Amino acid sequence: MPDKLVLINGEIMKSEEAAVSLSDRGYQFGDGVFETVPVYNGRCFALIPHMEKLFNSVIAVKLPGIYTVEEFVAFHEELIAATGIIHGEIHTQITRGAAPYSLDFPEMTVPQLSMFTIEGDRSKLRDYQEKGVNLITEADTRWQRCDINTLNRLPAVLARQRARVSRAFDALFIRDNGKITETTESNFFVVKDEVIWTHPANNLIQNSVTRRLVKERLAVDLELHVVEKTFDMDFVLKSEEAFLAGPRHELVPVTKIDRKFIGDGLPGDITRKLQSNFQQFLKHECPQK
Amino acid sequence: MPDKLVLINGEIMKSEEAAVSLSDRGYQFGDGVFETVPVYNGRCFALIPHMEKLFNSVIAVKLPGIYTVEEFVAFHEELIAATGIIHGEIHTQITRGAAPYSLDFPEMTVPQLSMFTIEGDRSKLRDYQEKGVNLITEADTRWQRCDINTLNRLPAVLARQRARVSRAFDALFIRDNGKITETTESNFFVVKDEVIWTHPANNLIQNSVTRRLVKERLAVDLELHVVEKTFDMDFVLKSEEAFLAGPRHELVPVTKIDRKFIGDGLPGDITRKLQSNFQQFLKHECPQK
Repeated sequence: MPDKLVLINGEIMKSEEAAVSLSDRGYQFGDGVFETVPVYNGRCFALIPHMEKLFNSVIAVKLPGIYTVEEFVAFHEELIAATGIIHGEIHTQITRGAAPYSLDFPEMTVPQLSMFTIEGDRSKLRDYQEKGVNLITEADTRWQRCDINTLNRLPAVLARQRARVSRAFDALFIRDNGKITETTESNFFVVKDEVIWTHPANNLIQNSVTRRLVKERLAVDLELHVVEKTFDMDFVLKSEEAFLAGPRHELVPVTKIDRKFIGDGLPGDITRKLQSNFQQFLKHECPQK
Repeated sequence: MPDKLVLINGEIMKSEEAAVSLSDRGYQFGDGVFETVPVYNGRCFALIPHMEKLFNSVIAVKLPGIYTVEEFVAFHEELIAATGIIHGEIHTQITRGAAPYSLDFPEMTVPQLSMFTIEGDRSKLRDYQEKGVNLITEADTRWQRCDINTLNRLPAVLARQRARVSRAFDALFIRDNGKITETTESNFFVVKDEVIWTHPANNLIQNSVTRRLVKERLAVDLELHVVEKTFDMDFVLKSEEAFLAGPRHELVPVTKIDRKFIGDGLPGDITRKLQSNFQQFLKHECPQK
C-alpha cells in the first residue's frame, strides 16, 4: 500500500510506517476481530450499527475494550478526511497485541487497532446486482461461532477460492445437517410464495447490518414477511427467488446455484424491489456532499 | 522481541527489522500455516517429520511451496547458529503474503516465511511431567480441519484461557457427539487394561510427531497395543491412566479432568514408562554437543 494513509492506534500515518510486529497475536493466531464499514459519497453507511457489531466481536473474544464508540466515529471521520475517500470501505481490525509466543492470554499487552480504506466505485458490483450471480455450495466446516467477525478467516478464503475455480461469485455454506447458512461474506435469502426466508441469527451466521436492514426495514416497507428458519437446498430449488445481502455487496440476486437455475433463472421481482428500496435508503443515509 | 534474531524469507535479521506488512494475509485472515520444532542441546528434534507436517499444511491450504525440505533444514541450522539457542523451540510460519484486501487468493503474491526461536529450559514442564496435570473439558466447536496447523488459532486461544481461569493446565476438546479429540496443543491418550487408546488420525485432530512416536515406537518397545478409536468421558473415567503427548509438552500425565480423578489420581505406571522411554529416545536423537 504505497503512500496510503492508515490509522494505527488512533494516529493517522503512512502505511509504510504502520508495520505490524512479528509477535502480534493477530499475525500468530488470528487473535483479533474486524469490521468493515461501507463508504458512499464520503460518508460512512450505518456506522453506529457496525460499531455495535465490532463491540460484540470484541466482547466475544475477550479483548480489552480501549476505545469508545465516539472515538471510533471520530477515527472513521479522520480517515475519510485524511484519505479523501469517496466510495469504498473502511476496514477496522483489533488484535490482542504483541506478546511472547503462547496461546495463553498475555498479561500486559495493549490491543492493536489498525484501520485502512479500500477505495472502489462499485461499478463491477453494479453489474452483478443487475445480472445476478451464480454460487457453488460448499460444506460448512467452519467453527461454531460464525456470528463473530474474527480474523480466523481461512475457511472463507478457501471456500472463496473454490468458488473462483468454478467461475462462481461465491460459495454457499451448507452444514452437515443439510441446512444452508450463508456465503463467505453475505447472508442468504430466498423468496417463496411472497415470503422471505433466511437462516436464524444464531451462532452459525453473521447477523450483518444489511441482513438486519432487510428484515427490519426493507421487507417491512414492502409489507413482506421475513421467516427466520433453517432450510435446505431442496427448498431453495423450489423457491422463486434468491439473493445475498451484506455490507460488501449490498443486495445481489442469485440466479444459479451449482449450475441449477433458481426460479426462472432471472433476478426476481421482490429482489428487485428490495434492491431499489436499498438504494433509496442509501441515498437518504449517505447523500452527496 | 528486542535484539532477537529471526529468519525472514531465508535471511537472518534483527526482529525489529522484521516488521510484517499491515496487508499481510496472515495478519488479515490468519491465511497461513505454522510448525514448531523442539530444540534440545542445540539440536532440532525430529526435524524431518516436522517439516513433512509443515509441507502437508502448506498443501492443504494451497500455499505456493517456495522452499525445499533441504532449505528448511538449513534455515533451522542457521537460526540455531545465529541465536545460540540450546533448549526451546523454533517456530516457523508461512503466510500467503501481502496483497490488497480480498478473500480471493491474490494473483501475484510471494508467501512470507518467518522463523524465530523460543528459548526455555523446560524446568516448569518437568514439574508438570513429574506431578501430572489437571484438564477441563471444553466443547470442540473448532472447524473440521484440525489436522492442519493453520494460523486460525483463536478457538485454541479461547479454550486455553478458560482452562487458565479454571486453574487447569489445558482444555480437553469434546465434539458434539461426546467424542474426545485432543487438547489445544497436545494429543490425548488413555490406558485401559494395558491398552493405549487415542483418537484416530483423521481431520479432527493433529497427527503430531509426538503422537506418531508414541504409536510407532514408544508403545511398540513396551509391547503395548495402541487402539485408534474415538471414546467419550465415561470411558476416560473408567480407565487407569491418561496422558498428553505433543511437541511442546512431550509426554505429560493427566491426573484429573473436571475435578474428577483419573485412575488413582496419580501418574500411571505405563505413562511413566513411556515418559522414560521418550527421554531415552530424546538423548539418542539430540545428544549433548
